[in-house]
Amino acid sequence: MDASALFKFSSGLYVVSADDGERTAACLVNTGLQVTSSPLQVSVTVNKENFTCGAIERAGHFSLAVVDESADMLFVGRFGFRTSADYDKYDGIASAVAATGDPYPAEHACSFVACNVVQTLDVGTHVTFVGEVVDAGNLSDVPPMTYAYYHGTLKGKTPPKASSYVGGIR
Amino acid sequence: MDASALFKFSSGLYVVSADDGERTAACLVNTGLQVTSSPLQVSVTVNKENFTCGAIERAGHFSLAVVDESADMLFVGRFGFRTSADYDKYDGIASAVAATGDPYPAEHACSFVACNVVQTLDVGTHVTFVGEVVDAGNLSDVPPMTYAYYHGTLKGKTPPKASSYVGGIR
Repeated sequence: MDASALFKFSSGLYVVSADDGERTAACLVNTGLQVTSSPLQVSVTVNKENFTCGAIERAGHFSLAVVDESADMLFVGRFGFRTSADYDKYDGIASAVAATGDPYPAEHACSFVACNVVQTLDVGTHVTFVGEVVDAGNLSDVPPMTYAYYHGTLKGKTPPKASSYVGGIR
Repeated sequence: MDASALFKFSSGLYVVSADDGERTAACLVNTGLQVTSSPLQVSVTVNKENFTCGAIERAGHFSLAVVDESADMLFVGRFGFRTSADYDKYDGIASAVAATGDPYPAEHACSFVACNVVQTLDVGTHVTFVGEVVDAGNLSDVPPMTYAYYHGTLKGKTPPKASSYVGGIR
């Protein structure tokens, strides 16, 4: 079995955020997916060790912003390589708040959706949240950043907690 | 709410196939996703009205082949715009069989995985199957076809049964 076959799965890069009433948590994922169109539902899969996973569970809602190609490694590092446990990832950057009360980045994102969680599925190290979309909008005309662009052009790495981490291969 | 925000979600194009012991079913989807790396699990979301959805349920396993940029509209039409109910989609094309017993295309696909279903989630019009990967390999060096490439370069359409269909907008 050659697990590098998985590297050919295409995905985007997303900032998933939740405000549980006490505080805001956010992290970078590549697991945003539209699962149905009627009703409009998206899913996102988050590592249980990410602070954001618990925040979504407590909040019962989340926002999902589509990162665009204007994002630099500073932006990626802020959301992808720090923890919300002791750091407000929205401190010092432009942001807005969705109808669900969850923040999303107002820069380096080309669109966003915000959802109420309607189902959760425990998939082991991660949780898949299925949300019904209640707010959505476009933010820029910059093309969405694909995970392939992130690896190939930004030379970004896949951290061990990511769904798409395959130890040691890249 | 501007549902066109969803058009910026990036995805690939996949042929999902299942052999339930009686016959083979397959269809084209854009919902392949790696959900965890340890164990290696992928999910795929399929419309309940697709013959392939029932075939995966009966089989308890499936293959997922990553469509590459060599695929033309004949290939797309074969897997995406016909039904396995009265047509063997593998008739007359090169194919191979994964360790699970499910076929996958041996042309116009750059890699494949094959999975045993470990969880299913009913998401309304569609079912999400979570599978543990038991077979995987690379098939070509042609880049994977993204859904953006399918729309932009192949001028492909999104059929109403697709997860990413948003009625009338594109």
